[in-house]
Amino acid sequence: MWRDLAPIGRDAATHGYRRHAWTGADADCRAWFRDQATARGLTYELDRNGNQWAWLGDPEGRDAVVTGSHLDSVPDGGAFDGPLGVVSSFAALDELRRRGAEFTKPLAIANFGDEEGARFGLACVGSRLTSGQLTPQQAAELRDADGVTLPQAMERAGYDPSRIGPDRDRLARIGAFVELHVEQGRALDLTGHSVGIASAIWPHGRWRFDFHGEANHAGTTRLADRRDPMLTYAETVLAARREAELAGAVATFGKISVEPNGVNAIPSLVRGWLDSRAADQATLDTVVAAIQQAAKGRAERDGVDLNVVRESFTPVIEFEHALRDELNTILGGDLPVLGTGAGHDAGILSGSIPTAMLFVRNPTGVSHSPAEFAEEDDCVAGVLALADVLEGLACG
Amino acid sequence: MWRDLAPIGRDAATHGYRRHAWTGADADCRAWFRDQATARGLTYELDRNGNQWAWLGDPEGRDAVVTGSHLDSVPDGGAFDGPLGVVSSFAALDELRRRGAEFTKPLAIANFGDEEGARFGLACVGSRLTSGQLTPQQAAELRDADGVTLPQAMERAGYDPSRIGPDRDRLARIGAFVELHVEQGRALDLTGHSVGIASAIWPHGRWRFDFHGEANHAGTTRLADRRDPMLTYAETVLAARREAELAGAVATFGKISVEPNGVNAIPSLVRGWLDSRAADQATLDTVVAAIQQAAKGRAERDGVDLNVVRESFTPVIEFEHALRDELNTILGGDLPVLGTGAGHDAGILSGSIPTAMLFVRNPTGVSHSPAEFAEEDDCVAGVLALADVLEGLACG
Repeated sequence: MWRDLAPIGRDAATHGYRRHAWTGADADCRAWFRDQATARGLTYELDRNGNQWAWLGDPEGRDAVVTGSHLDSVPDGGAFDGPLGVVSSFAALDELRRRGAEFTKPLAIANFGDEEGARFGLACVGSRLTSGQLTPQQAAELRDADGVTLPQAMERAGYDPSRIGPDRDRLARIGAFVELHVEQGRALDLTGHSVGIASAIWPHGRWRFDFHGEANHAGTTRLADRRDPMLTYAETVLAARREAELAGAVATFGKISVEPNGVNAIPSLVRGWLDSRAADQATLDTVVAAIQQAAKGRAERDGVDLNVVRESFTPVIEFEHALRDELNTILGGDLPVLGTGAGHDAGILSGSIPTAMLFVRNPTGVSHSPAEFAEEDDCVAGVLALADVLEGLACG
Repeated sequence: MWRDLAPIGRDAATHGYRRHAWTGADADCRAWFRDQATARGLTYELDRNGNQWAWLGDPEGRDAVVTGSHLDSVPDGGAFDGPLGVVSSFAALDELRRRGAEFTKPLAIANFGDEEGARFGLACVGSRLTSGQLTPQQAAELRDADGVTLPQAMERAGYDPSRIGPDRDRLARIGAFVELHVEQGRALDLTGHSVGIASAIWPHGRWRFDFHGEANHAGTTRLADRRDPMLTYAETVLAARREAELAGAVATFGKISVEPNGVNAIPSLVRGWLDSRAADQATLDTVVAAIQQAAKGRAERDGVDLNVVRESFTPVIEFEHALRDELNTILGGDLPVLGTGAGHDAGILSGSIPTAMLFVRNPTGVSHSPAEFAEEDDCVAGVLALADVLEGLACG
């Protein structure tokens, strides 16, 4: 399976993946999914929101057990974030068939569309649409860097965007959703386990900091006459690190946009995006307020106008305790239970249906990078754990 | 004159000028120049390097007196940087004709092409080619953001790029070049004068700082596991300001490029460009070395690899003392004589021919910005000073 999937959407120079929603690479990934489904005699289905489903048993049956993840990637992403969950789902099904497992409930493997949000800037679009957390009206306003809207992109990829929207009947038929995912930090590795269970997704948000200064000549403008927003930005970047460190949270400035962005021009505008997450909302609020305070203080000194916009926010998501405990019981009772700073389709769907997650060890903690890696032994352990869970949930 | 020129290449949103070399806006500026020349009965000439000339008297004569500047702009530039020198040249000629001045030497008004380097990244391309400081081979390798080379751009604009190269015969016929330019700082304003004379152009250079870190997930990577090059960049930006302040120099980070530049991704690479200038080379060397030292120290702390490349460097340019003194004598002997941090065609040509510059007061010091401004009274004073200078040099 990996062999066919590995080359799709891989950049020859960076070796990173560029599998963005509704692009050619995405279509190739989707064709791969469909082939895997039909090769196993599963019923293939594409839902109204562009998510793919492979069914063993009746797609219209009740109390279905669903597993899966996503196949799209961030720009220059790694091989495991997303695909490991989908590949492991098919492998777990193969394992269960080897075991001669008899399914008493419908089982489905899903590939949720546009999880990373690399193209339209919003993550988990497929699961958000299905759960109603994103309305078709909001979706129609999402645009990529070239101004193409999400419905236009779907249409160009040969899909009908007119039917996107909440899919409550589908969700009502699902009894449990279990997503396996490579861990994106080193918390699991530090416990010495190959596989762990998710407790919660940290609250997180994105804030856009607009630093407005005054464009001017970099060679002739006296330092005293400058209103240089790059200075304010720089101070804010360092403050974010400091405040996150003090609070045990994370805070990152990974994206910037500068006008006019010329070597010999003091910028008129520096726009920086803050991504911050913490174990609880009070901590997150404290960190972000402290960063804003530091930015404001420096802005006054630099003669810069500061405007901060919260672009997105997701409160803490606690996975259902009953399902989480059931997984741990099935898997022997001694697996580590870990929080994570990353968003997932499982987090979105947890508002609608019982949802759980399995993490597979990431020895370096590297993710969203071509260097993302997981040991084969750990991946096999993940497949076996997922097979056990599906057997426990769907063959009871 | 201003009325026809003002709307060309002006962005409706920013009100800044985007008159980049060999674009439609540039062609419109060139048509304006040609119209001004022919309306005054001057001999119009386009040289092999794309510079425009308007001659009063014999273009092949010896010891010509040349004035002029440039009409192109930086991205979202102001109305005065460049055009003030060209418009004032025509106005000064009109004034001299009103005075009934009799010219004993050929007089030319020039519009040098691609002074700002906004499109191809190298400033003063027209004068560099003419003086031989840029070879046709080097020019052929200059590319704009779309990959179009300079010769291709010239050809698309209807010019023959096959004849570009040094034009020593032309330079040998020029006895003096005087460029009038709006000042790009407030040094002249602080003296209380409308017009000043240039002493020297400060040595200046551009350095590219490549900060190599490790791409990673902004939500799940522990702070201790990060190699975040944005932190190193931020510290370096603040160090540049600090070191410039200590040394009485200027240092600016106005351009940045980030990979992958995603909100939820720790960057793998932050590339920042330093522009730094000082009154003398020793000071400039000290400032840049101190900035590099600060960057290096922080890079070690952040686990970031730093690579610094000097992309360009121009040593100090002292304008010819004899011509400078002659100008000051013609203008009454009490004008301020000022250094500047900005490069100019006059600086490039000073290596080949006697060259001088007049500055017109800039009350705000703002330049390379839509807000660039000069008072009408000061502009008139500039025209009269230029007329006096041309009369003194060409009618003697």
